[in-house]
Amino acid sequence: MPVQNVLYAQSGGVTATINASACGVIETARRNRERIGRVYAARNGILGALHEDLIDTSAETANTIRALLHTPGGAFGSCRYDLPALPQGRAHFERLTAVFRAHNIGYFFYNGGNGSAETAHQVATILPRLGWPVKSIAVPKTIDNDILRSDSSPGFGSAAKYVATSMHEAMTDLASMANSSTKVFVMEVMGRYTGWIAAACGLARPAGKDGPLLLLVPEIHFDRKRFLAAVKYRIERHGWCAIAVAEGVKLRDGRRLTQAGGDGIPGHEQLGGVAPIIAAMLRSALNVKVHWSVLDYVQRSARHLASATDVEQAYAVGKAAVEYALAGRSNVMPVIRRRSDKPYRWHIEPASLAAIMNREKRLPRSFLSADGWRLTARARSYFGPLIDGEAWPPFAGGLPVHAQLKLQSVPRKLKSAFRSAD
Amino acid sequence: MPVQNVLYAQSGGVTATINASACGVIETARRNRERIGRVYAARNGILGALHEDLIDTSAETANTIRALLHTPGGAFGSCRYDLPALPQGRAHFERLTAVFRAHNIGYFFYNGGNGSAETAHQVATILPRLGWPVKSIAVPKTIDNDILRSDSSPGFGSAAKYVATSMHEAMTDLASMANSSTKVFVMEVMGRYTGWIAAACGLARPAGKDGPLLLLVPEIHFDRKRFLAAVKYRIERHGWCAIAVAEGVKLRDGRRLTQAGGDGIPGHEQLGGVAPIIAAMLRSALNVKVHWSVLDYVQRSARHLASATDVEQAYAVGKAAVEYALAGRSNVMPVIRRRSDKPYRWHIEPASLAAIMNREKRLPRSFLSADGWRLTARARSYFGPLIDGEAWPPFAGGLPVHAQLKLQSVPRKLKSAFRSAD
Repeated sequence: MPVQNVLYAQSGGVTATINASACGVIETARRNRERIGRVYAARNGILGALHEDLIDTSAETANTIRALLHTPGGAFGSCRYDLPALPQGRAHFERLTAVFRAHNIGYFFYNGGNGSAETAHQVATILPRLGWPVKSIAVPKTIDNDILRSDSSPGFGSAAKYVATSMHEAMTDLASMANSSTKVFVMEVMGRYTGWIAAACGLARPAGKDGPLLLLVPEIHFDRKRFLAAVKYRIERHGWCAIAVAEGVKLRDGRRLTQAGGDGIPGHEQLGGVAPIIAAMLRSALNVKVHWSVLDYVQRSARHLASATDVEQAYAVGKAAVEYALAGRSNVMPVIRRRSDKPYRWHIEPASLAAIMNREKRLPRSFLSADGWRLTARARSYFGPLIDGEAWPPFAGGLPVHAQLKLQSVPRKLKSAFRSAD
Repeated sequence: MPVQNVLYAQSGGVTATINASACGVIETARRNRERIGRVYAARNGILGALHEDLIDTSAETANTIRALLHTPGGAFGSCRYDLPALPQGRAHFERLTAVFRAHNIGYFFYNGGNGSAETAHQVATILPRLGWPVKSIAVPKTIDNDILRSDSSPGFGSAAKYVATSMHEAMTDLASMANSSTKVFVMEVMGRYTGWIAAACGLARPAGKDGPLLLLVPEIHFDRKRFLAAVKYRIERHGWCAIAVAEGVKLRDGRRLTQAGGDGIPGHEQLGGVAPIIAAMLRSALNVKVHWSVLDYVQRSARHLASATDVEQAYAVGKAAVEYALAGRSNVMPVIRRRSDKPYRWHIEPASLAAIMNREKRLPRSFLSADGWRLTARARSYFGPLIDGEAWPPFAGGLPVHAQLKLQSVPRKLKSAFRSAD
């Protein structure tokens, strides 16, 4: 077999553990030098491939590559960019073919979510037709946990552990203030279409009916009257109420609460942030003091509190991707298959990209109680192992230490720059 | 010396390490059984004392008390309540005298900030005049770091470590997305009157002029035009810009940005949250994608990422308070005196409450560069040791373990309930 190079790239919103997958790809490739030459990384995802803007990871020491295991963000740059479909996208695929040929790229690993799976699929199916055979594998990653066919998505377990811990801790604060001050705390987490992350906050309280923690997910329509009654009841019963809300929570008419405005004040919607809308609603309806938080990027970059399970799985899918490619597979994604909850047993297996790409896995209704406010036992069995174990990064001077990469550019070989109409 | 009981209480906004001070008080009292009988805790601060709502900490095991070291929130309940001054407050002080006498309280420890120091001062000076001699000591605590005479305030170091780490991590996320998506991230932290916490975020970047991280504090007036130019310049230079903003940042006319609204849309101010206002301003003025986060309670309860220095000092002020009281001192606060930055050396010494109460320590102008956007070397020398060292709590099932207290009530001895006009 001829020695060929690897091209690895990161795509979409990043996670606390996407670089652990990069580490898995690069370390596994380095262990297969008889088949793999250099590992290049595209700068800023597929855009770097189109613009022939490549990074030579050979310039990084083994220690630096290992440090990717505890470095959040996307070390090589990510992008929000979808390749146009054929026939309009022909120039894009011809360009990719030229870049791959120029740099002898035999293996392409695209680290992303549902949308990125389509890019990997396009590369796997179109480039060979244009004369450049390549093994193209999608490496799963998303805090949203919405990848079909995978029991969970690398990146989710760490986000889930972080939000559940944050809610667990913030509830101690709220409980101590509620007697004479704040009665409600609202914490907004990511989840535009699905409630996986908001649901994970439910782990912050033990099982039990009518507890002081309410979950609001996009999969269950928001009903103002029912919600206000539930909060009021909890304040009366417990003295306080905590609420975890997904950013994409929706009204019955399909509009997001952030679009509709919870309180009818024009202009609120452009601020984004459903937590302040809910806070304003509670203040005016219940006349209570409310605190609110919007975690945003902090929740998906909190590598200091990563789940050990997640770090292990993020590495494992990167490693499996290289092994699949070397075994001749293409157009697949290594996904996580759960064998048992307790003890937690899992393995990695390949899944066809056509069955995954551009689809999304919703939170099952069976994960929430009939009233929709709390987790079921089934959900706890599912989420529990995903947040288990700590994987503290090294610290220096009080702050986590991150990998310091050289990010050395690969000299360009093509004469022309890529110019696209879009 | 007669054996007398201790009354300990928590006041004001809580911190990740206020319970470490409770641990210091209780463990030290337990080591002095020849002088101290029981340690009672007032439920919900001074309100519990007024209402004779006391908790007997003797019911808690040594292990449970030790677990307070890694439990955030206020384990015995806190309050936002100031005692009325004399002569209006006479009924309050007579009531406190009756409660203290009924339960033989010889030592009072009030764990709070500047306002709570006044309560401790009132107890120290008024109760003896009403016939009940008591040693009353204020135990410092506030994430705001605004206690005069103390080099830093227990609770601040952990909040500072958490916000600096969160910004450090979120910047890796932003840097990886900026090429084709989000260019600005705004993180709002607490600090209604002072910029200590926002300034601590500056630790997330190494020293250097014109770096991509800007700090906004209440001590420096917000100038929209200057700010927009600074952000624009950073986006051009670095590709992205991160902003740490204190909730209380102000315009030149003295109004908070949250009161004025940054974009003139009526109604925004009632939502609280300066981060969404700044985000809206940047979107409309610079036409860039902006993400924003409001940490709120999460930043002051993040015990999972406490500073080891802070935990040690929080314990030390609790211990010192008991030792001072046993040595006959009253009307003082054990404060932290720094002897050197590097190596970091400090000790605890008593400071008079009259010099501390109801005053606040502002962020020195010398801590920020001339342009106001970043930390000076002097600020780094100050903040560095405060965030140093990790003090991970134990975890079980993926979440931090907190102390589970019995919170056993002390039988009431007084016939009457406390009814106050206020």
